[in-house]
Amino acid sequence: MAVSKAKLDRALNPTTVAVVGAKKANGFNWLRNMSDLQGKLYSVHVNPDHGEEIQKEFNIENYANIKDIPDEIDYVVVSVPRAAAPQVLRDCIAKNVGGVGMFTSGFAETKEPEGIELQNEITEIAREGDVALLGPNCMGLYNPQKGVRFSQEQSIENVGSVAFISQSGGHAGSFATAAKARNIGINKVISFGNGVVLENADYLEYLGQDDSVEVIGMYIEGLKDGKRFFNVLKQVASKKPVVIWKGGQTPQGQRATASHTGSLAESIDMWDVVIRQCGAIRADNLEETVDIIKALSTLPSVQGSKVGLIGGSGGQSVSMSDAFGKEGLDVPPLSESSYDTLRGFFRQIGASYMNPMDVGGMNREQLQTIMDILINDPNIDLVLGQITPSSMRNNRFNQGIETLLTVLSRTKENVSKPIACMLITPDPYGQGQELFDLEQRLQQANITSFPSYERAAKAMARMVNYYKNQSQSI
Amino acid sequence: MAVSKAKLDRALNPTTVAVVGAKKANGFNWLRNMSDLQGKLYSVHVNPDHGEEIQKEFNIENYANIKDIPDEIDYVVVSVPRAAAPQVLRDCIAKNVGGVGMFTSGFAETKEPEGIELQNEITEIAREGDVALLGPNCMGLYNPQKGVRFSQEQSIENVGSVAFISQSGGHAGSFATAAKARNIGINKVISFGNGVVLENADYLEYLGQDDSVEVIGMYIEGLKDGKRFFNVLKQVASKKPVVIWKGGQTPQGQRATASHTGSLAESIDMWDVVIRQCGAIRADNLEETVDIIKALSTLPSVQGSKVGLIGGSGGQSVSMSDAFGKEGLDVPPLSESSYDTLRGFFRQIGASYMNPMDVGGMNREQLQTIMDILINDPNIDLVLGQITPSSMRNNRFNQGIETLLTVLSRTKENVSKPIACMLITPDPYGQGQELFDLEQRLQQANITSFPSYERAAKAMARMVNYYKNQSQSI
Repeated sequence: MAVSKAKLDRALNPTTVAVVGAKKANGFNWLRNMSDLQGKLYSVHVNPDHGEEIQKEFNIENYANIKDIPDEIDYVVVSVPRAAAPQVLRDCIAKNVGGVGMFTSGFAETKEPEGIELQNEITEIAREGDVALLGPNCMGLYNPQKGVRFSQEQSIENVGSVAFISQSGGHAGSFATAAKARNIGINKVISFGNGVVLENADYLEYLGQDDSVEVIGMYIEGLKDGKRFFNVLKQVASKKPVVIWKGGQTPQGQRATASHTGSLAESIDMWDVVIRQCGAIRADNLEETVDIIKALSTLPSVQGSKVGLIGGSGGQSVSMSDAFGKEGLDVPPLSESSYDTLRGFFRQIGASYMNPMDVGGMNREQLQTIMDILINDPNIDLVLGQITPSSMRNNRFNQGIETLLTVLSRTKENVSKPIACMLITPDPYGQGQELFDLEQRLQQANITSFPSYERAAKAMARMVNYYKNQSQSI
Repeated sequence: MAVSKAKLDRALNPTTVAVVGAKKANGFNWLRNMSDLQGKLYSVHVNPDHGEEIQKEFNIENYANIKDIPDEIDYVVVSVPRAAAPQVLRDCIAKNVGGVGMFTSGFAETKEPEGIELQNEITEIAREGDVALLGPNCMGLYNPQKGVRFSQEQSIENVGSVAFISQSGGHAGSFATAAKARNIGINKVISFGNGVVLENADYLEYLGQDDSVEVIGMYIEGLKDGKRFFNVLKQVASKKPVVIWKGGQTPQGQRATASHTGSLAESIDMWDVVIRQCGAIRADNLEETVDIIKALSTLPSVQGSKVGLIGGSGGQSVSMSDAFGKEGLDVPPLSESSYDTLRGFFRQIGASYMNPMDVGGMNREQLQTIMDILINDPNIDLVLGQITPSSMRNNRFNQGIETLLTVLSRTKENVSKPIACMLITPDPYGQGQELFDLEQRLQQANITSFPSYERAAKAMARMVNYYKNQSQSI
């Protein structure tokens, strides 16, 4: 790594932060992002008028140069015009800061000679100076526990054990938003843009050694050193799940990565082999990345691929079976002993106790019994249940939702097999409020959910496969 | 066909409707479904107390037997216990009704001898009697123009040229709900359950000949006569788009169809060949079915597969390119002449005028110009633009939304190439209200939208392929 671990430690877990060049035009946005910092915030601004305004508005000290700050600085956000970036970086190094998140853009990504030259200059400065340079052309760090954010919409309360490394600032922000929405606790999100001195392998290696990180997600456009990445990935993936979303999987996408981060095209088939050989997990877009991480970070491990499905009409039973079947999971018949018990009480007209179980309104009172039979069946390794938010509308079913939550929570306590829900509606826009309310209720009860059969099936398949590989490599 | 076309005509376009056996327990639900009937409604109930209650509550006549109604009856909903079904059907035939939607279940789908025997009995009665029997074990007809519904949530105002045929009542209802939500006008939705005398080929043939129907969707679990279906499909698909969603694509799904409609397993590979040979369009779930039908029923035809993409950050540009690339569509560079014009005014730092076009905030004022360049480029056959509903929150961007709608509407008027939107957010639950509002605004402006890159790409690919096949077969 081009920087000492101690510096990276300080940069990614800072207690003192400075913002250099906060812009008045956007309401000093970068300072606002740090409003919940669990530590001490400083401003650096060469314009004394702006500096005075900042001091008043944020009640913090402003300095003309970072070297003037009478405190050790762990992390610096640099938001100055590109021409000033080299000198600011030199000052940061002279100050012995831990790291710099360089938001400033206009470097090699512009393909202009001036931008390329400036990028070469800051690369050299950073390499010589032992400073953890995130970027340039990036959003830098989101560490909720430390109160370091790159957007005011990010929550400092959404703390957990998931880390995300991204070559795209947009995707880093989207991941943070999606994680909050899906109740996935964040340890760190790192956006590193052009990644001139620290790249994918460096952050992955660091997070692999960080015991507070249990699941790692990555959005990758390209690598500087493929062999090193392969070795690091192999090592880290043997210790914790690493979910890899590769951008530029098609010639069309590769043209876009060339124009975005200037990454070279590697075929997705090659990536697929690397990911499998290293025991990592492939995701192909933001939704898949979030779904798989949700599954891995909230559900118990599973040994087997036999799925029990519950809830839904006849046609829906077919659809969910197809969704899980396509992902290589089995939806097998239950054991004869389960069927013997079910035959004793299950009302069959307009319902079915095959797998999937179409419970129907008439068997709803027996839901706990049915769930117990299903989850304890020796043919079943994990259980997914359908919930329709439309049904939250009337009072009769509100009791149904209550019952369902009780049944799910109780069952979850008593068994070690994964149980999760699928929130299904043909009108997600019109039923947005019900979906939101229902998801909140499920999150409060710590019940994992997915927004469609297909997305649940894909997340379950990747999870099942991950634990299968893990058990085989032991 | 086992019934005369005249009978089917009356059944599917009824002006007089009778409900036999409306249940007090569910608030006479089936009569309530017909509250907006554009014609005359009658009740048939053998219980005089219930009959009297119905007369009072619905202000309609109740009769003990359908034969007593002093009017011609086009369509009868039968909701009686299964044991009474054969006699009610005989009475309907004696009355010379057009058709019967038999909601009553408990027939062959139960696999019990009694149910199987009763199904054989009504099959024979219907065959001999020349009556258009929908079902049994089905939801029957939704014809908004006639005010005939199978759920009170269905709208009689959502009238259009799309028809849907379904072996699942649940999926028929879900399609109707999704169509309303997505502003897809409905001509007819037909749920035919066990389909004892009329099956897929019959309804398809009928709707193929109906000039008010422009696009047909089908949810199929199995066929009674594969050869006949093949011939009918080939004929109908040569005249109008037929979108086929086959349930039971996997061994898991096939086990579920066996337990749902008792359909035999045909491999999806065989289905795929049939669908392609007939010039129909394959969909694999409800969302795909709705997306493809939305595209076909609202966008102009397209000759070519070269996509122009607009809106979104660098990482998002990669993701949307990958999504379209995976579906076999091209996202090509623009012509040199377009780039020459763009170079003249486009601000490039933090933006990009490649394809995809990352417009960035700084080029927003030039949106109409940029859109004109993109859509008129000879390398581009259709254009998709990203919109993020989160941005509806602040006033500054609300103007942006207004501008965007104006640009989209104006461009749509002036060119014959398809233009559509992709509504993107990492938090669809939390931004449900914004998504709903934005979708409403787009619908009012007659702008087609899709909820993700992947869904847009799939719908566009199927549409492009359909028009390609059409032009080759001429």
